[in-house]
Amino acid sequence: MDDSPKLRLFIEAPLAEGGTVTLGAEQAHYLLHVMRAPAGAQVALFNGRDGEWQARLADSGKRSAGLVVERCLRPQAAEPDLWLLFAPVKRQRIDFIAEKATELGVSALQPVFTRRTAMTRVNEQRLRAIAIEAAEQSERLTVPEIRPSRALDMVLADWPAGRRLFMLDETGGGRPIAEVLSRAERGPAAMLVGPEGGFAKSELDAVLSLAFARPVGLGPRILRADTAVLAALACFQALCGDWRHPAE
Amino acid sequence: MDDSPKLRLFIEAPLAEGGTVTLGAEQAHYLLHVMRAPAGAQVALFNGRDGEWQARLADSGKRSAGLVVERCLRPQAAEPDLWLLFAPVKRQRIDFIAEKATELGVSALQPVFTRRTAMTRVNEQRLRAIAIEAAEQSERLTVPEIRPSRALDMVLADWPAGRRLFMLDETGGGRPIAEVLSRAERGPAAMLVGPEGGFAKSELDAVLSLAFARPVGLGPRILRADTAVLAALACFQALCGDWRHPAE
Repeated sequence: MDDSPKLRLFIEAPLAEGGTVTLGAEQAHYLLHVMRAPAGAQVALFNGRDGEWQARLADSGKRSAGLVVERCLRPQAAEPDLWLLFAPVKRQRIDFIAEKATELGVSALQPVFTRRTAMTRVNEQRLRAIAIEAAEQSERLTVPEIRPSRALDMVLADWPAGRRLFMLDETGGGRPIAEVLSRAERGPAAMLVGPEGGFAKSELDAVLSLAFARPVGLGPRILRADTAVLAALACFQALCGDWRHPAE
Repeated sequence: MDDSPKLRLFIEAPLAEGGTVTLGAEQAHYLLHVMRAPAGAQVALFNGRDGEWQARLADSGKRSAGLVVERCLRPQAAEPDLWLLFAPVKRQRIDFIAEKATELGVSALQPVFTRRTAMTRVNEQRLRAIAIEAAEQSERLTVPEIRPSRALDMVLADWPAGRRLFMLDETGGGRPIAEVLSRAERGPAAMLVGPEGGFAKSELDAVLSLAFARPVGLGPRILRADTAVLAALACFQALCGDWRHPAE
């Protein structure tokens, strides 16, 4: 459809015109052996700071690949400042949440343990790998931060000033999500989605007592936690985020 | 949280007070052996027509179970009239689409073949089984209709009068989804989501020439087809559907 390279990789190194980038064993394997990129192949690179750059595969060894950075394809741009706080669920669905939240433009994923959270451990490294792949494929310029898992009350105790928190309230206490979001002030925000068993009453009361928190409702049906996450993020981007503007 | 029965089954038979229902081998196995329901256990039943009823397990054989219908828990109620037209994707993601679209209240799923659809067959029976399970768990009163797969142009040629069609336009030609939906007239609607490779130019042109069709945009990132489906359905329910009203 356009002439931009289709291969897209997230790297940690700085990006600037004429620079060189050496891929480690894993990315080199992907590029050379999975995608079978020939010498001279174009690759798009981004690091979350310097925009997106076109690079060319210059030399390849057995366990590494060297790229020459040629030109800037897109400058780094502001993105919605939206955190996702979610109670960990079993592996397949948590992978799914990490993938979809990345596509939907979340800036940070914060796993939170609640009273009824069945999971006791989260593999943050695994979530980061999924987020990187989703960022590469969705043409994001950043990878969302994967925060270490923490107890919900600890996260709320540390809450930064000026960030609104929308809590998905399954008990029916919230106003409809479109009503709340369309009246919300712009600025840093977070979505909080509880575990499959819902929040404990004491947790709900604690969140609702916070001045920065607003409960929102997602209609009459019972949604799985992963469905609720996606639905809430989509509504946020549509009403408050970067889906409000026509594409260029 | 409440005293309504937690076991919930979709059946085909009519439901009325004092009636009896005999479950077939598969549902009986689920109820008796998977869920280990004892004699006298309460089960909620719905058939998509007569509302939701409380029933009680009265007798069980090796391959069947008999239930006595006791009282109506919820009357049948109107639901949003929203079709999902989607290009089939590979198995794991199509299963996911069927599950999530059911939770999100779609009334009919219509797989459509497009020029760039990689799949050539859809297992509608399998999608129906997934939709039934999702309806049972999401406390829907209906199961969405699974339509036989058809070519997109055939579906559009048969389009019913008065039903609006929102097409997810990845080329950036659509207005932002919240803008379009918040101005849309109420009434029967459909969402059309193309294949991973996007619509062919000729398909896009054909859809856009239809008076009932409107292109909508889902922001600057590239979304997988399954993500786009969920996001669009959530935005519809939030802005035009049954998420607009507070829970009772």
